[in-house]
Amino acid sequence: MPQDTIETELAQLGLELPPAPQPVAAYIPAKRVGELVFVSGQIPFKDGKLVYIGKVGAERTQEEGYECARLCVLNALAAVKALTGSLEAIREIVQLRGFVNCTPEFANQPEVINGASELLVELFGERGRHARAAVGSSSLPRNVTVELELIVRVAD
Amino acid sequence: MPQDTIETELAQLGLELPPAPQPVAAYIPAKRVGELVFVSGQIPFKDGKLVYIGKVGAERTQEEGYECARLCVLNALAAVKALTGSLEAIREIVQLRGFVNCTPEFANQPEVINGASELLVELFGERGRHARAAVGSSSLPRNVTVELELIVRVAD
Amino acid sequence: MPQDTIETELAQLGLELPPAPQPVAAYIPAKRVGELVFVSGQIPFKDGKLVYIGKVGAERTQEEGYECARLCVLNALAAVKALTGSLEAIREIVQLRGFVNCTPEFANQPEVINGASELLVELFGERGRHARAAVGSSSLPRNVTVELELIVRVAD
Repeated sequence: MPQDTIETELAQLGLELPPAPQPVAAYIPAKRVGELVFVSGQIPFKDGKLVYIGKVGAERTQEEGYECARLCVLNALAAVKALTGSLEAIREIVQLRGFVNCTPEFANQPEVINGASELLVELFGERGRHARAAVGSSSLPRNVTVELELIVRVAD
Repeated sequence: MPQDTIETELAQLGLELPPAPQPVAAYIPAKRVGELVFVSGQIPFKDGKLVYIGKVGAERTQEEGYECARLCVLNALAAVKALTGSLEAIREIVQLRGFVNCTPEFANQPEVINGASELLVELFGERGRHARAAVGSSSLPRNVTVELELIVRVAD
Repeated sequence: MPQDTIETELAQLGLELPPAPQPVAAYIPAKRVGELVFVSGQIPFKDGKLVYIGKVGAERTQEEGYECARLCVLNALAAVKALTGSLEAIREIVQLRGFVNCTPEFANQPEVINGASELLVELFGERGRHARAAVGSSSLPRNVTVELELIVRVAD
């Protein structure tokens, strides 16, 4: 049962938060400093497995990259929720940075990262609009298709 | 007619701000949180067109990369001005991150991103000196030569 | 003679801070804004020389990458100390971003950047745990093996 309006919105989109990313020995999924929460680079976990592996332009299409970015941002929101207790604590989405694992010829990184940006605006409306960078990368951890970083502002 | 001292300085350098980057559906050119403004990744628009395309070490020289970085930072400043109304609102340049689209052998990313850093110091003096990262990228949106991110501190 | 508890800890690990990175014309090693210090991208200087050159998966092993990340974070701490006067001023490690210069096939960027993350936790304990991103890069300045960015929170 969704616990708040953002999760209700997610459910209406047929989506749900994945389990929160787990801290590992040396770093944590998200760190708060004042009103800002810095979320660690998120990769496409679903049910505990990485579901988009491979480079856009080679093993993966642009559309699969879009879906991967959407999944990464759900993991990022799960990391925020684990820290704050609820997605309702999010006042604004501040910044999103997306790294797209792709061939040197691929040049549509913005269209890939739109998978994350568009979901944030669907969920949070005007306050979900954010500063953003989308860049290509020649390689990413576990050869995932997209890695996303997020900064949000939360309630005091 | 330049409206403020920073724009007068720009004019004396023979430069002018490009039109402000336009918001797109899913993200915005710059987002303010408290005193900080996070600027979205900027690419080399001039008169509405991208003017530096291609990788340094292949289609582009290091010097063209330098000019591209200079143009990207003008776009970043235009994004700040669109949010704050004037470049006079800028108290300090905090951080610059430059991605250089280049061949795997190219290793002079700092010299390329100096195109942006040096202009910031010319314009803002001591308070224009910033933390910086310059890295290589195997691909960037639209195959532009440089993409720049900027954080500035603005007046309360 | 170590001047504070963190430097004593470093000495016990057989490590010492390198000389602080020097400002160059256009940018500075670290910039403070409020409680946050943004550290410029750090590369593996030791005794004034770059000691890890080359890409992981080609000229460098994963283990050398780990050692390189550890050295980069010492340089980052030296940059903070140069700004604040002492490592004791550090209240928390907020965020670490590591770029690994590697072949397109390499996918263990997290294991490389652990060289930095694990040292931060050894030195700072619970408050050393941080948000993190580890990504691959096709090229870095001077062909160094790792470049690191750091954000820390310091005393008022």
